[in-house]
Amino acid sequence: MQTVPIALLGCGTVGSGVVRMLTEDAEFLAQRTGLRFDVRYVLALQANPKARVALTGAKWVTSMDPILADKDVGIVVELIGGTTFALECSKAALSAGKALVTANKAMLARHGGELFPLAHSTDSCIGFEAAVAGGVPVILGLRDGLVANRIRAIYAILNGTANYILTEMTGANKPYEQALAEAQAAGYAEADPTYDVDGIDAAHKIAILAGLAFGEDIAFDRIRIEGIRGLQLDEIVNARQLGYVIKMLAVAERMSDRRLSLRVHPCLVAKDNPLASVDGPFNAISMFGHAVGHVLMYGRGAGQSPTASAVVSDLVDVAIGHARRRFQSLKIWPGKTRPAQIVSTDNLVSRFYLRLQVADQPGVMAQVTRILGSHQISLSSVLQKEVPLTGPVNVVITTHRAREGDLRAAVDEIDRLPVTKAATAWLRVIDLPAEGIDAGDEWNRKE
Amino acid sequence: MQTVPIALLGCGTVGSGVVRMLTEDAEFLAQRTGLRFDVRYVLALQANPKARVALTGAKWVTSMDPILADKDVGIVVELIGGTTFALECSKAALSAGKALVTANKAMLARHGGELFPLAHSTDSCIGFEAAVAGGVPVILGLRDGLVANRIRAIYAILNGTANYILTEMTGANKPYEQALAEAQAAGYAEADPTYDVDGIDAAHKIAILAGLAFGEDIAFDRIRIEGIRGLQLDEIVNARQLGYVIKMLAVAERMSDRRLSLRVHPCLVAKDNPLASVDGPFNAISMFGHAVGHVLMYGRGAGQSPTASAVVSDLVDVAIGHARRRFQSLKIWPGKTRPAQIVSTDNLVSRFYLRLQVADQPGVMAQVTRILGSHQISLSSVLQKEVPLTGPVNVVITTHRAREGDLRAAVDEIDRLPVTKAATAWLRVIDLPAEGIDAGDEWNRKE
Repeated sequence: MQTVPIALLGCGTVGSGVVRMLTEDAEFLAQRTGLRFDVRYVLALQANPKARVALTGAKWVTSMDPILADKDVGIVVELIGGTTFALECSKAALSAGKALVTANKAMLARHGGELFPLAHSTDSCIGFEAAVAGGVPVILGLRDGLVANRIRAIYAILNGTANYILTEMTGANKPYEQALAEAQAAGYAEADPTYDVDGIDAAHKIAILAGLAFGEDIAFDRIRIEGIRGLQLDEIVNARQLGYVIKMLAVAERMSDRRLSLRVHPCLVAKDNPLASVDGPFNAISMFGHAVGHVLMYGRGAGQSPTASAVVSDLVDVAIGHARRRFQSLKIWPGKTRPAQIVSTDNLVSRFYLRLQVADQPGVMAQVTRILGSHQISLSSVLQKEVPLTGPVNVVITTHRAREGDLRAAVDEIDRLPVTKAATAWLRVIDLPAEGIDAGDEWNRKE
Repeated sequence: MQTVPIALLGCGTVGSGVVRMLTEDAEFLAQRTGLRFDVRYVLALQANPKARVALTGAKWVTSMDPILADKDVGIVVELIGGTTFALECSKAALSAGKALVTANKAMLARHGGELFPLAHSTDSCIGFEAAVAGGVPVILGLRDGLVANRIRAIYAILNGTANYILTEMTGANKPYEQALAEAQAAGYAEADPTYDVDGIDAAHKIAILAGLAFGEDIAFDRIRIEGIRGLQLDEIVNARQLGYVIKMLAVAERMSDRRLSLRVHPCLVAKDNPLASVDGPFNAISMFGHAVGHVLMYGRGAGQSPTASAVVSDLVDVAIGHARRRFQSLKIWPGKTRPAQIVSTDNLVSRFYLRLQVADQPGVMAQVTRILGSHQISLSSVLQKEVPLTGPVNVVITTHRAREGDLRAAVDEIDRLPVTKAATAWLRVIDLPAEGIDAGDEWNRKE
């Protein structure tokens, strides 16, 4: 049996969940892993009272100094969150050669380029399974399980709050504002939901996944981010009628010219796509590799217990020695890889959904289709919704594959028409790629 | 850059897929992992011609002796299959202190109790990601990602052939024999489909997963195995009408008395269950942990490239040194754990589907319901199918939750009734458990 002294930074929801797991499940973990984790320090201004009672032997501190000075403590678990004090503490821990385990996606997405090289320079390591998709072991699966795959694309639902709101809008025809208010009341959304509904949190997570998947350094500010704030119920209802569900997807794709497309946005997903049935607070990640084809992982992306489960799996990984060896061996970490070339979404090609609000008069559709045609956009379907006798008409259009830049230009032009009564709503329609498993036909041919 | 000499046993479909990946993707792998795998030996009577060309430096041998004698070769990849020569070679490799990487589920399920202790005794290790669910990194996810979880249950589609046949029966109303013949023609089923359609292959895989999940030694012959051979199209059609899909599930559940239920059988799965939409040759594994709740992994369970992807991920794992450390640290391997107590399915409680074939005469339903009632089985729904004017009537019954032993006794009794014209067909109805995440309410209470 090996005792592993650790320091815990932050003792809020996730931190106290980790304390609970390490104390209530100590015997189970010891029996399974041969490890006994000993929380020697907790750096927290306020602490969950139960955690304070459970950790009889811990020193409660308010600075990193005693932790850094204690040579026995080889692992620091950062669960403070944010990118100021947490970053400062994390850098101090890594500088002192201590392994860092963290659930802090914002910090890794924005400062990974600083933290990972620092970890290498002190022969340390960073465990971050809890930073993406909570209890779903997607970091492990992507980094280790699919290590031999050239990843072609990742399509993921990575924000449970936004997905919960969209699920409520879809399932119960609730407008966005009502669904958000109810999510806040149920504890699924924070008082300030910006990070979640505006797609920033999902962007942090796809930045981390893309870095691992493609082995390139991701500049976070190059990710295109569009959230669900302002999404109208009309879009949800129309999508359903067309056989789609609207999901906020985080997407990372390798283009044919080897550049990357990285983005977060609401989009139409066909009903039979596995991601379409990922409801409520769940997360799911569809990954496409050249050898494995489509692999999907699904589970709870947040919450005290699922996140603590991921943190403790990282603790075991670090304590066994895997994390350090992996850090030394694999060349997929920021600082070891080249910067990614990221394409503008204007150059992406996809299908589109549009909802126009136009005057109900002859010749309108002719004007609209002329504009779309002049931008090389051809129509796949047109649906004119029944409306009250007065007021503008809603026209729902889906297009064949077109360049996004062309679509934007066409929409700008349509919105300047005198017959257009309100800004056109438009969304991307996502088609998952064919699996494209490298079947090695030449190898498999019978001779 | 580290060069890793390996020996390959078997060079058929998967073996040549591994050769292809290690040669065609050598630069990619070296760049990503810092490792260069060098196939020094291939033990094979016949070899894929392309593999023979690609491996310029390999010695082609027909016995283990030169491999065992070469101290440079630290990893042996067993892709022969079967439990005779493959077992002999694997034991020889482990005895010589070489790490074993294998895709051989039959060997691990039936002889793990011998192989794992042998690996420990020589400070070696076994990598077996490819043995379950092909390219899906479920071994990694379960063993490492969910290491801190008490696993409550696993429900899995682990045989792509059986699932392909069921998908064809369900989607196109094809009888079993036709769907099997087409699967054979399409290369999804072998000429002798016994292992696949009779559930034996899936049982091998759930034995391996259950061993890891529960940390107990699984006696393979205690697994109850029922395949899909003989499944009638009636059951598929009736299930659909009731809102279900029939899937062959491999199930491992921890009972409240801590015993395990391990079984493979066709069963009714509600249409909105994520497993219901796993079609064709795909695999999926639903796992329930006390901390993470429901985690699902999905992907291709077989095929050259997906399986090779898993084998190569194990090669990296072993070469980096993870596998050996994990073997030394974790206490979840056969020989380090206690034997599982496995319950008879007679003691299981679930809902059931029955199709009776009875004479169309007054009083029949009274006799049937009296028998069911006398065995503490209450009905949830009854559907009498319209039939030709003569001949027996099909009566489809679903029950509330009942003991399987009681159900069997009742069916025996019904089948002995003079009015019963053919043996009653019956299937289990599977309800996924509530997630039951350990929410720690006491810990989370605001004070």
